Amino acid sequence: MSVPERRSSVMAIAEQQPRLATLDSSIVDRLPSYSATLFEAKAQKRLTFEQIAEHLGRSEVAVAALFYGQAQASPEDAAKLTKLLGLSQESNIASQMMGFPDRGRAGPMPPVEPLIYRLYEIVQNYGYAYKAVLNEKFGDGIMSAICFNSKVEKEVDESGAPWVVITLKGKW
Amino acid sequence: MSVPERRSSVMAIAEQQPRLATLDSSIVDRLPSYSATLFEAKAQKRLTFEQIAEHLGRSEVAVAALFYGQAQASPEDAAKLTKLLGLSQESNIASQMMGFPDRGRAGPMPPVEPLIYRLYEIVQNYGYAYKAVLNEKFGDGIMSAICFNSKVEKEVDESGAPWVVITLKGKW
Amino acid sequence: MSVPERRSSVMAIAEQQPRLATLDSSIVDRLPSYSATLFEAKAQKRLTFEQIAEHLGRSEVAVAALFYGQAQASPEDAAKLTKLLGLSQESNIASQMMGFPDRGRAGPMPPVEPLIYRLYEIVQNYGYAYKAVLNEKFGDGIMSAICFNSKVEKEVDESGAPWVVITLKGKW
Amino acid sequence: MSVPERRSSVMAIAEQQPRLATLDSSIVDRLPSYSATLFEAKAQKRLTFEQIAEHLGRSEVAVAALFYGQAQASPEDAAKLTKLLGLSQESNIASQMMGFPDRGRAGPMPPVEPLIYRLYEIVQNYGYAYKAVLNEKFGDGIMSAICFNSKVEKEVDESGAPWVVITLKGKW
Amino acid sequence: MSVPERRSSVMAIAEQQPRLATLDSSIVDRLPSYSATLFEAKAQKRLTFEQIAEHLGRSEVAVAALFYGQAQASPEDAAKLTKLLGLSQESNIASQMMGFPDRGRAGPMPPVEPLIYRLYEIVQNYGYAYKAVLNEKFGDGIMSAICFNSKVEKEVDESGAPWVVITLKGKW
Amino acid sequence: MSVPERRSSVMAIAEQQPRLATLDSSIVDRLPSYSATLFEAKAQKRLTFEQIAEHLGRSEVAVAALFYGQAQASPEDAAKLTKLLGLSQESNIASQMMGFPDRGRAGPMPPVEPLIYRLYEIVQNYGYAYKAVLNEKFGDGIMSAICFNSKVEKEVDESGAPWVVITLKGKW
Amino acid sequence: MSVPERRSSVMAIAEQQPRLATLDSSIVDRLPSYSATLFEAKAQKRLTFEQIAEHLGRSEVAVAALFYGQAQASPEDAAKLTKLLGLSQESNIASQMMGFPDRGRAGPMPPVEPLIYRLYEIVQNYGYAYKAVLNEKFGDGIMSAICFNSKVEKEVDESGAPWVVITLKGKW
Amino acid sequence: MSVPERRSSVMAIAEQQPRLATLDSSIVDRLPSYSATLFEAKAQKRLTFEQIAEHLGRSEVAVAALFYGQAQASPEDAAKLTKLLGLSQESNIASQMMGFPDRGRAGPMPPVEPLIYRLYEIVQNYGYAYKAVLNEKFGDGIMSAICFNSKVEKEVDESGAPWVVITLKGKW
Amino acid sequence: MSVPERRSSVMAIAEQQPRLATLDSSIVDRLPSYSATLFEAKAQKRLTFEQIAEHLGRSEVAVAALFYGQAQASPEDAAKLTKLLGLSQESNIASQMMGFPDRGRAGPMPPVEPLIYRLYEIVQNYGYAYKAVLNEKFGDGIMSAICFNSKVEKEVDESGAPWVVITLKGKW
Amino acid sequence: MSVPERRSSVMAIAEQQPRLATLDSSIVDRLPSYSATLFEAKAQKRLTFEQIAEHLGRSEVAVAALFYGQAQASPEDAAKLTKLLGLSQESNIASQMMGFPDRGRAGPMPPVEPLIYRLYEIVQNYGYAYKAVLNEKFGDGIMSAICFNSKVEKEVDESGAPWVVITLKGKW
Repeated sequence: MSVPERRSSVMAIAEQQPRLATLDSSIVDRLPSYSATLFEAKAQKRLTFEQIAEHLGRSEVAVAALFYGQAQASPEDAAKLTKLLGLSQESNIASQMMGFPDRGRAGPMPPVEPLIYRLYEIVQNYGYAYKAVLNEKFGDGIMSAICFNSKVEKEVDESGAPWVVITLKGKW
Repeated sequence: MSVPERRSSVMAIAEQQPRLATLDSSIVDRLPSYSATLFEAKAQKRLTFEQIAEHLGRSEVAVAALFYGQAQASPEDAAKLTKLLGLSQESNIASQMMGFPDRGRAGPMPPVEPLIYRLYEIVQNYGYAYKAVLNEKFGDGIMSAICFNSKVEKEVDESGAPWVVITLKGKW
Repeated sequence: MSVPERRSSVMAIAEQQPRLATLDSSIVDRLPSYSATLFEAKAQKRLTFEQIAEHLGRSEVAVAALFYGQAQASPEDAAKLTKLLGLSQESNIASQMMGFPDRGRAGPMPPVEPLIYRLYEIVQNYGYAYKAVLNEKFGDGIMSAICFNSKVEKEVDESGAPWVVITLKGKW
Repeated sequence: MSVPERRSSVMAIAEQQPRLATLDSSIVDRLPSYSATLFEAKAQKRLTFEQIAEHLGRSEVAVAALFYGQAQASPEDAAKLTKLLGLSQESNIASQMMGFPDRGRAGPMPPVEPLIYRLYEIVQNYGYAYKAVLNEKFGDGIMSAICFNSKVEKEVDESGAPWVVITLKGKW
Repeated sequence: MSVPERRSSVMAIAEQQPRLATLDSSIVDRLPSYSATLFEAKAQKRLTFEQIAEHLGRSEVAVAALFYGQAQASPEDAAKLTKLLGLSQESNIASQMMGFPDRGRAGPMPPVEPLIYRLYEIVQNYGYAYKAVLNEKFGDGIMSAICFNSKVEKEVDESGAPWVVITLKGKW
Repeated sequence: MSVPERRSSVMAIAEQQPRLATLDSSIVDRLPSYSATLFEAKAQKRLTFEQIAEHLGRSEVAVAALFYGQAQASPEDAAKLTKLLGLSQESNIASQMMGFPDRGRAGPMPPVEPLIYRLYEIVQNYGYAYKAVLNEKFGDGIMSAICFNSKVEKEVDESGAPWVVITLKGKW
Repeated sequence: MSVPERRSSVMAIAEQQPRLATLDSSIVDRLPSYSATLFEAKAQKRLTFEQIAEHLGRSEVAVAALFYGQAQASPEDAAKLTKLLGLSQESNIASQMMGFPDRGRAGPMPPVEPLIYRLYEIVQNYGYAYKAVLNEKFGDGIMSAICFNSKVEKEVDESGAPWVVITLKGKW
Repeated sequence: MSVPERRSSVMAIAEQQPRLATLDSSIVDRLPSYSATLFEAKAQKRLTFEQIAEHLGRSEVAVAALFYGQAQASPEDAAKLTKLLGLSQESNIASQMMGFPDRGRAGPMPPVEPLIYRLYEIVQNYGYAYKAVLNEKFGDGIMSAICFNSKVEKEVDESGAPWVVITLKGKW
Repeated sequence: MSVPERRSSVMAIAEQQPRLATLDSSIVDRLPSYSATLFEAKAQKRLTFEQIAEHLGRSEVAVAALFYGQAQASPEDAAKLTKLLGLSQESNIASQMMGFPDRGRAGPMPPVEPLIYRLYEIVQNYGYAYKAVLNEKFGDGIMSAICFNSKVEKEVDESGAPWVVITLKGKW
Repeated sequence: MSVPERRSSVMAIAEQQPRLATLDSSIVDRLPSYSATLFEAKAQKRLTFEQIAEHLGRSEVAVAALFYGQAQASPEDAAKLTKLLGLSQESNIASQMMGFPDRGRAGPMPPVEPLIYRLYEIVQNYGYAYKAVLNEKFGDGIMSAICFNSKVEKEVDESGAPWVVITLKGKW
């Protein structure tokens, strides 16, 4: 159930700040220990992924993936993040982020989170359609999900309704 | 294992024709009965999804989804397809394509087909990253996987390697 | 992917007829054999569930459940349906509909069909919320899913958007 | 096994208080950490969901969903709840409730709790019936489980037996 | 959804006959081939399990289990059944019924059929309670589910409501 | 492997005491926290479920279910148990026992415990047989597993072998 | 439910013949096609596995495994079986039996058949006990389940009760 | 990967001691708490299961099963073990071992441990073969996995290769 | 159970022919329809995969994968195979083999076939070991299972025992 | 998403050190407790598996398997590792490494880690191809996954692209 659009003037201030993605306490155990540290620092600095991504010169999705332990930080990423988030230099968090990620365990599959389920549903419904189109366009093979990048954009249609545009770009 | 790049001159002719996506006989029972008819007609006419999509004025993915019984044909789609593929007018295939799709059963989940699995893996690895970025950009809510369209494009990088670009666009 | 709102004048006639729910050929084996017969007769007579429900004096959901073999027909239901759908009197379809239903096997669980999945998702997300509210209102116990009826209505909000209203009524 | 209707006069006082829904200790780890805090405060104040819902001006189901971490609190909800339940102002519980919910993990699916299973069973048995009726009424599409609200009411039939009436209202 | 109690006089005759359990066509493939034969003969002779059980001198549950291929017929059972149901003497159905049953595959587990699910739910909820009580009464060990018999009775309480009484008796 | 019947005189005393059902440490986390407290108090007082059941005037199975958090205590049950087991009056254990049970999570399904598996196996093998017999006796409907009670008795046959007799009584 | 020991004199003749294991019609599709042929021939010749095993000079279990397509026939086995069972020489059944078996698909796992489940339960309960004892006796390693043979014997204890003795012998 | 047969003289002493089965730290939570205590005491006393079994007069498998919480200790077993392993008399470990075992949860099924998997594989491949042979030898029924004992022996064939011989003996 | 080494002179001839891998009838439905045709032709021509691989100039594993519908034939492969196996030129089998494979459905996962299970077990046991070694050698990334080839060789050790050597070569 | 090739001069030093495989904190509980100790010591000494393997005279895969608790250390391995990694002599880590491994629980199956999944996918796609080739080459039987060793090598093709070569060698 989404939040109804009732706002009192008292609440106005709280609303002016962007709401930040945080880490649900029930998911912490599935992620590397530095995930919690990163999310806490991000919350204290009140930074969005958009702001961090701009600072690092990477896509927002890549940065969020790094926070969830699904992507490896380059030394440059690690240095910039440590500084931006004010992480302790002595901590070994930078070297942890630069470790080899143990991917794929952030959430259950099939996803139970409705937003993530919708992405899963796209694969479930249109998986064969993508395969057929890709095979005809590229021949037999696969699109890499590792040598891969992705971005998320917002579009607004003529009626004012927002649309999500996700671009997946993978090497064939 | 992909096909090695050994070609004899004898085989040259066969290669000049585009290879077409067909329907594996072992998947037929999971799909509505008109799927097999559509794929057979497409093979006989030697049409790619790109050609059909252009003719119908819809995206290739939408057309392939229609062939797999995952999308509903509009009366216009049905009329054009019937004519293009030379389907018998008396058959009730047009009305079947215009029925309400019973989606989501084309293949097993998790997918075992490697190409489709890669899409699934993107959801598995980056699902929470997408959620975090989308929540910060759009607030609480979901991207629709139904009020949704998608396209597939081919890009070639400076080294000549092909990249797949899939765009997912869904209403928030 | 939903059908885009492009309509040619050629297609206008087809559109004037209501689109009827049909039985996907890939689901037939999971249902009692009379399901296919009922759906075919319904299609030939071009009757909606709303029209049949009105004729039988039962809710649309109950009638559709009967078509899918999930509800038992009373002798009255069976007689009316046989007549309305023009079923052969000699066939034993009436007695089959009056048999004891072998419920729960129409589709896979978790549902893969997006529309049915949304109902499942409501249980997944709000199940404990319903339990807490019901326990406080009614004490320890359960709502019957058998001594149960349900109806579906359409509402249109001030912006013209349609809303589904499903009412579930079960004995405590 | 439900509680038999044997009451001694000694027990009369205990009975006069409403029994409140509490959080089973074995479920706590699946929920955000603020869930336990909210349920404890509710128990200490001896408030029902009905009373809280009335105070917040939202449905009981929405309020219970918020307690289980399945719905996002608006700033107004958070402010009212903090006050009503006497939560410490310095705690970050208000901001946590206003975070983006990580839905769908409160309980196992299929549900093992009998009351929640009954709702699941309705989807299992009548899922296709709802789909058929909705498709005929609304065309191809889905009912949103996110842009969605719900209420629970009690009715008593002529024989004095209580009936649960659950209304699900979702945007098409 | 159960059948509402509306009866027209026209329907009175149909109601006077007992309704017989039949074999759902979608379950036939999971059972030995003689199951279908037995159920058809039972329907033609319009015999209830109660009548057959009385004739064979066995419990109704044992007889129904035999029909579903879950119990082995003694030569006496086979002879009586062949005669009572008017089965062809030349057919090898008697010897099939006397074969060693391949038990446990009649339906899916967990059961999806609501009535059978309720029995499963008893095991799910009270399994450990039975174990604790049985261990204290009988020591370490198990109750046999093979050297086992069972009966079903009907009781009516003071308010006229029917109760099912199932007795399970197994060797320790 | 059951205990062989070798007894030394040294061991005679230990044997004279009834062996009590205890709570396996590996199951504690699946149950409400008061379960462990109840079992410990029962062990200290050296009470069997039979003795407690007699004291409370309820069936042994209901009492054991209460200990496993699968049944709700009435105020009377809670008062008697608190006194009988010598539980601290200040503890909130009585109010916890009177909370709404979160049923069905005591053990895994399918059960791995052999004794509980045997009950499960009865449902697996004879589920359809019970359904057929119940449908013919009671019509379409279900036996309640909630408005339900159960007892366990011991019978000894002519050869001296003990038999378990479990009676399940549920409202139709 | 096992067959009760009631025998009429009429039935005596039927009882004098040994009851033979047959192939349940619902399992045929999971086995190689020659399985059905072998079982039918065995039934017509009225041969037990004991008799066939003696004739072939192999263990009964090995012979039954061969019938279920789980073991490979040597040329000698194939020749003897063809003759003993009177199989058509022209059929390619001998060469099929000598093919490489596609093992492990005869029945579902966990087994639902009670007799097979008991063997599974031994592994479930005592698996770690076997591992600990074998490791201490043989060091780190495994017992082969392929370079393996097995026999089944019957023992009768002093009280006249029959015991099954299964010997598993595998190379370390 | 097994240990290669390279031994330095330095290592000779370590090798002269028998290697003992220990309890993997990652399995401890699945077992009753006394399991860890027993294994630690066994390691300190450097006792093999063979030595303990001889002392108790029971089979090695039964003793190991007792250590894993899968079998119940008799008072005599408990007394002997307490003394042999030097367990504290005041601890309640003896009474715990004499409790009713909560069997079947030591490891996952299907087993992932290769040695235990091999036993599982025997059931998977030859389950129906055992059933057929047992049915012909004993009639319809089952072999008990509870009224059951087992032993493990070592044989060496003519080529010097060791073979495991496991004997399973269960009441019919 | 493997075939014992007993050979009569009568059987000598049969033994001189190589035993050929065939297609189990119970697996046919999971594969594309041309698989059965290819295997039948291979059996009639009495060709091993080694002979076919040599003829095609590809690895044996690649050729077998092609027979099981897991690899795509090049036009050259298709032409050579058609000729070698004497397939009808008019049949569309060549074009089917050149279609885009629908991979991954040949057998169940986890595999039940013991030989295939051993490969699975290698992944289960040593998966993380491979990952750690590969990450240290190659950095973060994956080995392709598509841009991949493999060969199988036989080695005999000093004791005369045969060893399988499988080489997996995939692009990083 | 892999790390992009952007390097600042500031980062050069960090890059000169080899990146080491570490143990993800979320996997620790699935492994024996000495795994964490070994990985920490390896990180402190900054040793690659290649360096350790060279020191021990074993393959890298075997050494990594030992670190993950999937292989047993010989006394020699244990002695060398203790010294190389500077482990405390008093700790019982050497004896733990020499214990009998409880294999197969390091990660979930099917693997979610993409690199490990690729190995799994090879089994899924080519399992039957390996079986067919191996059967024709070696007869009926299996390749041992226990009496087994493996190595990993790096090859670079003419275009400069790295290839992984994994060799699996198992006794037949």
